[in-house]
Amino acid sequence: MMHMLDHIDHIGLAVADLDEALHIWRDILGLTVTHDETVPEQGTRVLFLHGGNADIELLVPLGEETPVGKFLQKRGPGMHHICFAVPDLEAALAECQARGLQLIDETPRIGAKGKRLAFIHPKSAHGVLIELCEKKPDA
Amino acid sequence: MMHMLDHIDHIGLAVADLDEALHIWRDILGLTVTHDETVPEQGTRVLFLHGGNADIELLVPLGEETPVGKFLQKRGPGMHHICFAVPDLEAALAECQARGLQLIDETPRIGAKGKRLAFIHPKSAHGVLIELCEKKPDA
Repeated sequence: MMHMLDHIDHIGLAVADLDEALHIWRDILGLTVTHDETVPEQGTRVLFLHGGNADIELLVPLGEETPVGKFLQKRGPGMHHICFAVPDLEAALAECQARGLQLIDETPRIGAKGKRLAFIHPKSAHGVLIELCEKKPDA
Repeated sequence: MMHMLDHIDHIGLAVADLDEALHIWRDILGLTVTHDETVPEQGTRVLFLHGGNADIELLVPLGEETPVGKFLQKRGPGMHHICFAVPDLEAALAECQARGLQLIDETPRIGAKGKRLAFIHPKSAHGVLIELCEKKPDA
């Protein structure tokens, strides 16, 4: 059995009101914002906060017709996805597909911080949106 | 500013079909089940899988009228909560309450593995159900 997943990289949260989310995660719970980037291809502004052993990612939609905008309309703010770092992204995607998981991205795309990543469809993962991202060589 | 949160202890997933969830998380994604316990007071069977730096917790309701049973009826299977380990649970709860977060548990209760824990209401945390658990002295 191949060890596909290395560790949890971050937990993504869909955010409807960034001021409110920052008030909770930064001001009350004390996490530090380490990164803030707009990713137009994903229609999202993303902020990372350092959660100790893994990050919290705040996802703020750039419009209602973006993936996170649609998620918010349907489900409201809250937990959006779990991202695992994998040693070999292409191998992990091939393995997931061979074992019956439905991929949203059959080939990796580039996300925040220039990271290569891909998503697995929640319909094939019992309701959980799983992101796989490539582990940094030094991590 | 006090550092309230130490690290992410686990991510809780609401599970409607345990066989399907284990097929995905254990058989396809390769995580190891490290704990399996029924917690009658919470109306839940909980299984922990080792996710590298933090655990994945599968929450299987013991009936429809349990908290996880109701969650499943409303939202379907998927991400349920994030649990952070804190060095001092009582101090963290007092701080959260003083800063305006609404607690589900004003005093800690005992969960799986005999751990002391408490939940913060998602209505006061922008839609995220946050659990705080006491960090082990040696962790």
